[in-house]
Amino acid sequence: MEKQALLYEGKAKRVYLTNDENIVWIEYKDSATAFNGEKKAEIAGKGRLNNEITSLLFSKLHEVGVSSHFIKKVSETEQLVKRVEIIPLEVIVRNYAAGSFSKRLGVEEGKKFHRPLVEFCLKNDDLGDPLVTDDQIDILQIAGSEEVEYLKTKALEVNQVLTGFFQEIGVRLVDFKLEFGKDAEGNILLADEVSPDTCRLWDLETNQKLDKDVFRRDLGSLTTAYETILGRLGGEKACTK
Amino acid sequence: MEKQALLYEGKAKRVYLTNDENIVWIEYKDSATAFNGEKKAEIAGKGRLNNEITSLLFSKLHEVGVSSHFIKKVSETEQLVKRVEIIPLEVIVRNYAAGSFSKRLGVEEGKKFHRPLVEFCLKNDDLGDPLVTDDQIDILQIAGSEEVEYLKTKALEVNQVLTGFFQEIGVRLVDFKLEFGKDAEGNILLADEVSPDTCRLWDLETNQKLDKDVFRRDLGSLTTAYETILGRLGGEKACTK
Repeated sequence: MEKQALLYEGKAKRVYLTNDENIVWIEYKDSATAFNGEKKAEIAGKGRLNNEITSLLFSKLHEVGVSSHFIKKVSETEQLVKRVEIIPLEVIVRNYAAGSFSKRLGVEEGKKFHRPLVEFCLKNDDLGDPLVTDDQIDILQIAGSEEVEYLKTKALEVNQVLTGFFQEIGVRLVDFKLEFGKDAEGNILLADEVSPDTCRLWDLETNQKLDKDVFRRDLGSLTTAYETILGRLGGEKACTK
Repeated sequence: MEKQALLYEGKAKRVYLTNDENIVWIEYKDSATAFNGEKKAEIAGKGRLNNEITSLLFSKLHEVGVSSHFIKKVSETEQLVKRVEIIPLEVIVRNYAAGSFSKRLGVEEGKKFHRPLVEFCLKNDDLGDPLVTDDQIDILQIAGSEEVEYLKTKALEVNQVLTGFFQEIGVRLVDFKLEFGKDAEGNILLADEVSPDTCRLWDLETNQKLDKDVFRRDLGSLTTAYETILGRLGGEKACTK
């Protein structure tokens, strides 16, 4: 597989074409951003950590039958994935109140919901990724109602599997954000990443935050937190040459 | 019917008890507020206009079988209504993009939707009445899913009737906000008001705004706009003693 021209550069990743039109080459960057890009930093090792963690989690999801765009990790910071056209919706699953949910609706962080909650936000940086209702998604023709139902079902399935994975390693899956894309045949695949950048992960015993809130809220070392997640998942330690 | 102690004072109305525990006495104030109370003014005649318009519209709705809390107008600025416990949701119906919809989702004002859209906002001034999804309403136990469906159906029914009323008088019903409440028997009734404070009303020919956007956006005289609506609805001119 040959890494070719840069196709797209996002806040946390670069996407390159390859010699296979159905496969792209993803490079995880060391950039950390929060609050729609208002807070920024370069954090050495972050790209590697998110690539390792996402590769591990997508592999584990594959093992239990949850398919995604992920093909394989090709270096510490790179992976190959199926090329998809991203559906412009952030699919958020919440098991506990936190973050924007708590702030917008005045609910204490950490309150457990009696069942998981799925939310959609429109992927649009200029608009600040606003929350959208099912009816708004339909009216704006962002996705059809069958597609929306499929995304909900898939997101809840991913939640059930990930909640179990994290439980086993003493971590509470508070909430997370997924993205989905369509491949050349129109199949909807789980895409983007699953990492402490996109999940809220709290230590089961201490409730210590082991995710991007460490960066958002200046709670200490982001890499230490992410290393903790990677280590507990059984991932490889950083190469310290 | 005897007007008794003040029960509650809102931004635009005062609610008094009466000698019948199931009936309250509403007094429309001359206060205009916008942007969650950030912009305020006293506008002589506004209370009368909204009381007259709401009384007319609730009466017209009754005539075609859409029930509400409304009993009767008792003075220029007052009406009697059934006492209900307000469900803490703003039910918004949109026929065209405007206001917060346009701003949040980057859609040009005036774009016609292919069907009416229903949205819910949590009635909570401290939180700025945030948009809530059906799933959030359920999770937060604000209302049950059957109740939510009932509110949607009822709101669309009101929309169909009001769109027709306004069409007849050369006015485009762009969007509007309803509130519903439960009476002592648990029946859900349309409540609050239906007026240019709670509807976006544009002249069919010129698109001139004949609603509270005149105040929000400093577009001229609010009372002239509201008088136009009342006049076209066949309501009484102000008493100029």
